[in-house]
Amino acid sequence: MNIETPIAPLSPPRRTLLGPGPSPVPQSVLDAMGKPTLGHLDPAFLGIMNEVRAMLRSVMCTDNELTFPMSGTGSAGMETCVVNLVEPGDKVLVGINGVFGMRLAEVARRAGAVVHTVEQEWGRALDPEALRALKTEGPFKVMCVVHAETSTGAVSDLSACKEVASELGAMLLVDCVTSLGGIPLEIDALGVDAAYSGTQKCLSCPPGLSPVTFSERAMEALRSRKTPVQSWYLDLSLVASYWGDDRAYHHTAPIQAIYGLHEALRLVLEEGLCERHARHARNSEALWSGLEEMGLELAVEKTERLVPLTAVKLPDGVSEGQARAELLEKYDLEIGGGLGPLKGKVWRIGLMGAGSSEANVELVLKAMKDVIGR
Amino acid sequence: MNIETPIAPLSPPRRTLLGPGPSPVPQSVLDAMGKPTLGHLDPAFLGIMNEVRAMLRSVMCTDNELTFPMSGTGSAGMETCVVNLVEPGDKVLVGINGVFGMRLAEVARRAGAVVHTVEQEWGRALDPEALRALKTEGPFKVMCVVHAETSTGAVSDLSACKEVASELGAMLLVDCVTSLGGIPLEIDALGVDAAYSGTQKCLSCPPGLSPVTFSERAMEALRSRKTPVQSWYLDLSLVASYWGDDRAYHHTAPIQAIYGLHEALRLVLEEGLCERHARHARNSEALWSGLEEMGLELAVEKTERLVPLTAVKLPDGVSEGQARAELLEKYDLEIGGGLGPLKGKVWRIGLMGAGSSEANVELVLKAMKDVIGR
Repeated sequence: MNIETPIAPLSPPRRTLLGPGPSPVPQSVLDAMGKPTLGHLDPAFLGIMNEVRAMLRSVMCTDNELTFPMSGTGSAGMETCVVNLVEPGDKVLVGINGVFGMRLAEVARRAGAVVHTVEQEWGRALDPEALRALKTEGPFKVMCVVHAETSTGAVSDLSACKEVASELGAMLLVDCVTSLGGIPLEIDALGVDAAYSGTQKCLSCPPGLSPVTFSERAMEALRSRKTPVQSWYLDLSLVASYWGDDRAYHHTAPIQAIYGLHEALRLVLEEGLCERHARHARNSEALWSGLEEMGLELAVEKTERLVPLTAVKLPDGVSEGQARAELLEKYDLEIGGGLGPLKGKVWRIGLMGAGSSEANVELVLKAMKDVIGR
Repeated sequence: MNIETPIAPLSPPRRTLLGPGPSPVPQSVLDAMGKPTLGHLDPAFLGIMNEVRAMLRSVMCTDNELTFPMSGTGSAGMETCVVNLVEPGDKVLVGINGVFGMRLAEVARRAGAVVHTVEQEWGRALDPEALRALKTEGPFKVMCVVHAETSTGAVSDLSACKEVASELGAMLLVDCVTSLGGIPLEIDALGVDAAYSGTQKCLSCPPGLSPVTFSERAMEALRSRKTPVQSWYLDLSLVASYWGDDRAYHHTAPIQAIYGLHEALRLVLEEGLCERHARHARNSEALWSGLEEMGLELAVEKTERLVPLTAVKLPDGVSEGQARAELLEKYDLEIGGGLGPLKGKVWRIGLMGAGSSEANVELVLKAMKDVIGR
């Protein structure tokens, strides 16, 4: 337990983060995270919380009263949505087309739900018809879908999902970790009942918080629960008492993380959502053309392809890990490998938030050409 | 959902944090949090994680393999320890002498435990005899105690608690949120089986992480579970695969928070644990004398008084909230109010981590004299 040599202060290298997240963080967001710590009940901090909530509603396109960042990463947000909506024995339907759909099903099982899954091809969008086919098994309390599957780079159609959820009598719970801030996502207009995101993707904020939002219908389900939420830490009625007018102490909020999110949301709104989405689309189009010009094959068909995260198939004879290690070493450039059944078969290139720039498209294309010898 | 006027970049005031936490954060810790973000699987970040684990073991005085910070605040650490050790139907004994003991009991209930509680006077240490008296109700799987009750300022005797736990056949689970780094706490020598802490108390790091440690016996209990851990996010066998040699992706670690903890732990070890404990003791003694000289009464008897956090009774005729607001406004000084049954009856003054200094003792005594007119 004793350390023999003193440990030096850290000095992390400066990387260009073009993997599946974390994404590049603007300097002003890093600076915000280093500002003086306030107490979690300090009136000055409560003011900052209010601004964060207002900006989050604006970025999520919702008027939902319950809209705030949970004190954990995206997976904590996933668990928050599930454990607050689901009681033991409730029927839940999960569409699975990648790692995060699988995770949703697992989290729902651990919450005691009776989980029905529709497993679909990885690298494809969810097929609403396949979900609709479960109608005879319903009604379901909740239907869970992943908007943007970070593990494959496929995007699903939330309007179509909402239609199915309504037919099944279910609330729609959406994972929007890799979509929020990068592609259009209108929580209220789509009729999404519960959603969670992460900060380290298209919001370009370091990881550590998970924005969540609950519709009035989801709030009503929460209020009429017969059993306590199994997680005390993630119990939204308790957390809401702190973020709401009561200001009741629940846990000590991660002050610096909220500073960072404040600045990141400010930058999103300063740019404008439409402009931001257009920028993401433009740069990813350029990336796709460049990769195809190199003779590489994209893993997802264009109509179902996610803008902020591109999966590209490995060329023959290239060692996946070695190539990524070389990119990191020679170019300080991070891209991601595949997950699950796609491990060793694809790279994942993220152009998210501040990372979505012409310069980064050029950099990643040049570096990849070099490393794989094209 | 639209924000009418643009929101300005944040500029939090600089406070002196002498409440129950967060405590004052050294500039080098804030600076560390603003360093460039790395990917959570970057070799450079994995090296930082290894250093954090080594330093945490050193500060916790343990060789436990499973020792790392969970990605949530102290309450997430509490829930982690409970949900990993407890399966539905397990018998758990909780000693309660304040808010955090109550919270432990509630978390254990939500995990499906059959919870027995021993409720004792708030402001007193736990009485081991009262816990021992439950022997006829045993055996218990886990006995939970709070080392340093942040809500009252009382410290309990962990050696005595361990003896009782052994007699009851139970593992000892300890809340050391407000003790770690401020008063002696030797996890291995005491035979503690599971413990959690927070970063924002005597470690003087911003809130956001919760260091946890599990003994071999606790690990064995985890390995031989019959049911899955109810929380996927807090499932230690999954989290350990990321912090351990596998480096299996579980969730995206809060990079900046871990940078901050790295620097905070470094400062603790640079000072030395004994020197740090002595400093805390010396400054709190001076605070106690000063408060008593002002004619104020301390809420906890000296033999059971917690060094880093002092509860002091309100003098007659003083408005609790108004006085604290005045301290904040006039002196940029934060102290805490009472919680639960002590609300409106005590103030809580923390001299934690970097906050434990002669200058701060002088400041808080001078400011309080002014504000309450003594």
